[in-house]
Amino acid sequence: MSAVRVGLIGSGFMGRAHAYALAAAPKVFDLPVELRLELLADVDDQVAARAAAALGFHRSTGDWRALIEDPEIDLVDITAPNAFHREMALAAIAAGKPVYCEKPLAPNAAEAKEMVDAAEREGVTTMVGFNYIKNPIAALAREIIHSGEIGEVFSYRGHHFEDYMIDPAAPFTWRHEPSAGDGVVGDLASHAISMARFLVGDIVSICADRDTVYAERPVGSDDSVLFQRQVGSDKKRPVEVADQARALVHFANGAKGTLEASWVAAGRKMNLAAEVTGTKGAIRFDLERLNELEMYVTGQPPGREGFKRILAGPDHPPYGAFTPAPGHQLGFNDLKIIEVRDLMTALAGGEDPWPTFREAWEVQRVADAWTISAKEKAWLEIDEAATA
Amino acid sequence: MSAVRVGLIGSGFMGRAHAYALAAAPKVFDLPVELRLELLADVDDQVAARAAAALGFHRSTGDWRALIEDPEIDLVDITAPNAFHREMALAAIAAGKPVYCEKPLAPNAAEAKEMVDAAEREGVTTMVGFNYIKNPIAALAREIIHSGEIGEVFSYRGHHFEDYMIDPAAPFTWRHEPSAGDGVVGDLASHAISMARFLVGDIVSICADRDTVYAERPVGSDDSVLFQRQVGSDKKRPVEVADQARALVHFANGAKGTLEASWVAAGRKMNLAAEVTGTKGAIRFDLERLNELEMYVTGQPPGREGFKRILAGPDHPPYGAFTPAPGHQLGFNDLKIIEVRDLMTALAGGEDPWPTFREAWEVQRVADAWTISAKEKAWLEIDEAATA
Amino acid sequence: MSAVRVGLIGSGFMGRAHAYALAAAPKVFDLPVELRLELLADVDDQVAARAAAALGFHRSTGDWRALIEDPEIDLVDITAPNAFHREMALAAIAAGKPVYCEKPLAPNAAEAKEMVDAAEREGVTTMVGFNYIKNPIAALAREIIHSGEIGEVFSYRGHHFEDYMIDPAAPFTWRHEPSAGDGVVGDLASHAISMARFLVGDIVSICADRDTVYAERPVGSDDSVLFQRQVGSDKKRPVEVADQARALVHFANGAKGTLEASWVAAGRKMNLAAEVTGTKGAIRFDLERLNELEMYVTGQPPGREGFKRILAGPDHPPYGAFTPAPGHQLGFNDLKIIEVRDLMTALAGGEDPWPTFREAWEVQRVADAWTISAKEKAWLEIDEAATA
Amino acid sequence: MSAVRVGLIGSGFMGRAHAYALAAAPKVFDLPVELRLELLADVDDQVAARAAAALGFHRSTGDWRALIEDPEIDLVDITAPNAFHREMALAAIAAGKPVYCEKPLAPNAAEAKEMVDAAEREGVTTMVGFNYIKNPIAALAREIIHSGEIGEVFSYRGHHFEDYMIDPAAPFTWRHEPSAGDGVVGDLASHAISMARFLVGDIVSICADRDTVYAERPVGSDDSVLFQRQVGSDKKRPVEVADQARALVHFANGAKGTLEASWVAAGRKMNLAAEVTGTKGAIRFDLERLNELEMYVTGQPPGREGFKRILAGPDHPPYGAFTPAPGHQLGFNDLKIIEVRDLMTALAGGEDPWPTFREAWEVQRVADAWTISAKEKAWLEIDEAATA
Repeated sequence: MSAVRVGLIGSGFMGRAHAYALAAAPKVFDLPVELRLELLADVDDQVAARAAAALGFHRSTGDWRALIEDPEIDLVDITAPNAFHREMALAAIAAGKPVYCEKPLAPNAAEAKEMVDAAEREGVTTMVGFNYIKNPIAALAREIIHSGEIGEVFSYRGHHFEDYMIDPAAPFTWRHEPSAGDGVVGDLASHAISMARFLVGDIVSICADRDTVYAERPVGSDDSVLFQRQVGSDKKRPVEVADQARALVHFANGAKGTLEASWVAAGRKMNLAAEVTGTKGAIRFDLERLNELEMYVTGQPPGREGFKRILAGPDHPPYGAFTPAPGHQLGFNDLKIIEVRDLMTALAGGEDPWPTFREAWEVQRVADAWTISAKEKAWLEIDEAATA
Repeated sequence: MSAVRVGLIGSGFMGRAHAYALAAAPKVFDLPVELRLELLADVDDQVAARAAAALGFHRSTGDWRALIEDPEIDLVDITAPNAFHREMALAAIAAGKPVYCEKPLAPNAAEAKEMVDAAEREGVTTMVGFNYIKNPIAALAREIIHSGEIGEVFSYRGHHFEDYMIDPAAPFTWRHEPSAGDGVVGDLASHAISMARFLVGDIVSICADRDTVYAERPVGSDDSVLFQRQVGSDKKRPVEVADQARALVHFANGAKGTLEASWVAAGRKMNLAAEVTGTKGAIRFDLERLNELEMYVTGQPPGREGFKRILAGPDHPPYGAFTPAPGHQLGFNDLKIIEVRDLMTALAGGEDPWPTFREAWEVQRVADAWTISAKEKAWLEIDEAATA
Repeated sequence: MSAVRVGLIGSGFMGRAHAYALAAAPKVFDLPVELRLELLADVDDQVAARAAAALGFHRSTGDWRALIEDPEIDLVDITAPNAFHREMALAAIAAGKPVYCEKPLAPNAAEAKEMVDAAEREGVTTMVGFNYIKNPIAALAREIIHSGEIGEVFSYRGHHFEDYMIDPAAPFTWRHEPSAGDGVVGDLASHAISMARFLVGDIVSICADRDTVYAERPVGSDDSVLFQRQVGSDKKRPVEVADQARALVHFANGAKGTLEASWVAAGRKMNLAAEVTGTKGAIRFDLERLNELEMYVTGQPPGREGFKRILAGPDHPPYGAFTPAPGHQLGFNDLKIIEVRDLMTALAGGEDPWPTFREAWEVQRVADAWTISAKEKAWLEIDEAATA
Repeated sequence: MSAVRVGLIGSGFMGRAHAYALAAAPKVFDLPVELRLELLADVDDQVAARAAAALGFHRSTGDWRALIEDPEIDLVDITAPNAFHREMALAAIAAGKPVYCEKPLAPNAAEAKEMVDAAEREGVTTMVGFNYIKNPIAALAREIIHSGEIGEVFSYRGHHFEDYMIDPAAPFTWRHEPSAGDGVVGDLASHAISMARFLVGDIVSICADRDTVYAERPVGSDDSVLFQRQVGSDKKRPVEVADQARALVHFANGAKGTLEASWVAAGRKMNLAAEVTGTKGAIRFDLERLNELEMYVTGQPPGREGFKRILAGPDHPPYGAFTPAPGHQLGFNDLKIIEVRDLMTALAGGEDPWPTFREAWEVQRVADAWTISAKEKAWLEIDEAATA
């Protein structure tokens, strides 16, 4: 593939982030393919036309199925609300087209598995947008772990805390629908799981907890831009999904750890953090400081021991593609640009990008097991959970 | 009681810390009693005599039972190795004397309960040295929580991490004897539990994990100064106690949380930390920065929201007794001085100090449940655990 | 002007950063003009053609004068080496075209003034790329200062430290040529001056110090990509320009302060920092943490006083145009996008953007006075210095 | 000298701090002398008697001259208000007794020199209480600098900021009397100077600035406990002494730097900080975090470069005398205990402690030059200033 003509579905927050990244990636990287913003689909023709003009797409349509069938579309990019991911992705796969889908892939592992199976059967390239693991700091963490610089890893502590639901007056939205997943478990915990798997590998068992802090929420307008749901006239709706969640986990490599997630973590804005300890040292980072990683190694000279604070720089690829100057920092949108670079490289070369639908399913299996374990108040093997 | 004549048992690390605090407390505080360093007992007459001279005690003895029986001793202060706490404390109680005992009170809840029962039956005042909760920053945290400044607390994350066992060459000591407790659970986790109870109250159920990172340790000389154990000639001994441990916990007030402990947390030196979140805000502190607490409240003006870093100062009693200048900082030894102040105030007034033997037993019940839950891989009600 | 056809001169580090920002700005912002990457000029036709293809410009040329004269160019964007800024800008002004020029505008105030006079005489819009002041955190700082939230400002401490010259083996480059300015004074100090003026206003007098830490540097290849200088065969060249510099300054509003700059500040990568104190509080920030500002106000409740750490978010325009989620962070390249937005808004509306050539001249006057004051070892009024 | 019988003059904030340190030092250290709290003098017999009882001194007197003449006093310890330091110290020296005097030694270098000359003529041991340099972290900084670990030092940035005068309603006290020194220059700047000299050595020239932020203060009761001044009935008094001050400095070893001081630095409580840069690295610390030092060295592996945060521990003598556990932290009062240890060691061994009266005079010479330079708006050689 020497040119990739992109068909984008959705133009909300993530749709715009994708459009931006698709446009910016060729300015930052020397991509192996030419990238064209070809067609944008949204809820109706007017919305789509307006969005296409704003985001720089050549054409637009109010019919996402038309986009998928369009012969001039090489890549289907799905940023529609989560509830539509499965249907759209399956259609794209059926059309034999590579799919780039925002997370979560599906509200549960069973649906995700259906999508994985379809993609693998058809042999189409897939990628899911767990953007935070695209951070050069995450790559640095992985490199340090895999190089043995901190020895054999035996402890992992990860969490993703934000506070956008801390206000009891925050309305009931699709995020609170049980059919969309278990609240913060499907939303933020999946990032914590994704990061843990990226850094340390498979999680084999889990014992979890989860609870709903605010038992009801006022009914209000949905926060999704596309395909808005009708909201009833009732004043309050009970909330069943999790506001906060915690888990004990065991990794395949023998490491033990905790994972936690909360969207009611007052004061936390983007606190996706990890702390990894091994027999020769430890690393930790918190993406509220997106460009920093702290590292400690044993064996430093007595009286000179300490965690060092490493600032992202050109020695942490692909930081240098953005700026040659260390400490100048990448931002959230830059991570999406790296994601696009990885996808385009994969499309050009024929290998799988990271993370594929399969990886997203692996993440979802852990998320599902999280909720089940918490409800059953018991340890669960992830394999069992998946078949459940 | 207008004068308190102290009999100190033990002159190791904690013995010296007690001697120091007993001497310094009257310089810092206007105590309600006169405090006399009367008698010091250690493993034999020579060691005791030398320690008494160094630490400023009037008399010495190689027989701790003689100390307890001495009619001129008003308070028995136990800093001998943990294995002796029970026997010494029971003897002091039997002699009708108040007891000040280093933590842990006992290697398990059953023995601790025996001590509580004895003390309550005899009506003697007791106190256990969980010094970290004496920090004015801990008192500030408690005040903020109890005042409702951060609303209704629903999340607690606490841990105590150090790394003094990270070296695989660190020898097998009494800390690794199963009879002394479950390794880091009895040692550092008990501080994390103590802090959690101090701040949020009773823990009602727990689901825990624990594991041994280094399966064996070289046999070496014991690190205890008093009553040294004989060590065998074998080169290595298997380790069964926990090196790291984690738990999901539920509090009586409905809050949920995690507790963690590790003595192999590479790079962490004194990382007893807590993060408490409520419906109106959050606080967090890490005693590696002994004089700081961070606080976030909801409702700050838009664009001006953030965690504030509060430095300990004279508005955080009893900081002002040490220095009238904010930001000048207390140290670890100062916490022990506060502990002595609290005990002397209690002895003078007749009320119970914090924490009593009963509180130490409550902490130990959670620690015991921690280990049992981890071994059974199941949630445990603390009440059940206690009867186990 | 409804469409702005950009002619970019130069395709090195800053050229690429401009190309990126020009392409990305319409994806992030709803710009009042259409922006076209029309023509790119570089040192010869081949280099220019290659760069135009890579950076997405329609046409290319090896003759920058042709670019300026091209009737289809509405804006001349200069990122050529500093030594060419004056000549190019004067030509663009003579052609009646708006000019967007990288900093520094000129190696000294006299040349900068010539450019200001020309631009103002011709009435062309000008802008200089002091990107760091485009950070929403800088805008927040300014808003806090101007709103009176920290009272009447009486103290300003600013500096810009990096360490890219700490290695004595770093070669002598055009940055070390006295004709290019006084080393770090023209380079990094100008950012510190620019920030100080942005936040607190005019600097009226200065007493400065500056010195050369490494008296000579090895002769090597120049670090400029465009218009490379010939390097001689000598092994070492003496360095006369400043490696580090400091100054006492007085502001027009009565505030006093210090400014400092160093490119040999070991360990500092992007340490452009400011600390501003007034009668009711203080703020501070360090752009090594690009998305944070700390703020203290007097009058907080006793025992609850502290600096708060504010994370950039949608309440700090134009952060929200990049992402609606607080704490997700902007990066260095995003600042350039904001700069482009400001310029396009100015071109559409006819008013002056910030900072104009005049502002850059004001900055340069302070930089010139800095060096003169240091050499004369005396206080200097900026007005006097400017006429010197 | 095998026993040192101390006569303490004054029982205010610093008097109590001395009493505490004198009592605690033998508990922490194995001192080479026996230390006795013999006699306490204060403004009258009653105050002295009460203070002696509270602070544990055997005897008391309302006549400080009697204390100095007392044959059973081996060491005269002066914590009376600054205005009395000179008279008391000269009397003690005349009596041939060692003197331990709180800082500042005198309100100006001339008086300090008179005291130095007297002490050296009589051959008495002297020490001045610049406690902050007794911090093991300061000793670590000095060791790193002197060992060459950060190469040849070329930059020093030091300051001491507090905010106890930020409130315009804070009353005019003896600290505002010009005869007591130049406000914050004599008060906090002297700590910044003392630290700079301790770490980098002699300051040879200075160019300074200083100004009064609040031109008048309400007349109120003096904050000194001993020898209270009468206050008039006027409502406001003009303030002439400096509220904030800054200086460019050159060191004898060629390093350049800045020194700053403010007692109106809103939000700063104990911000005595230093940043030292050399050809191979840098260190920095801020005593608001009393137990931390950050260190950067060049030559770290690419991608692993960073400042490390070193926590005080037993490898930083004499930390280990307080506690064998790293990260457990010393407090402000502990620094005073170290100071007493140093003095007792000197008295036992016959050598000079650090810092002597001579060192305090050296500090005062720089402080005097600071004020003169600021008023003359000119660079000043310290030697010239001293003769002025």
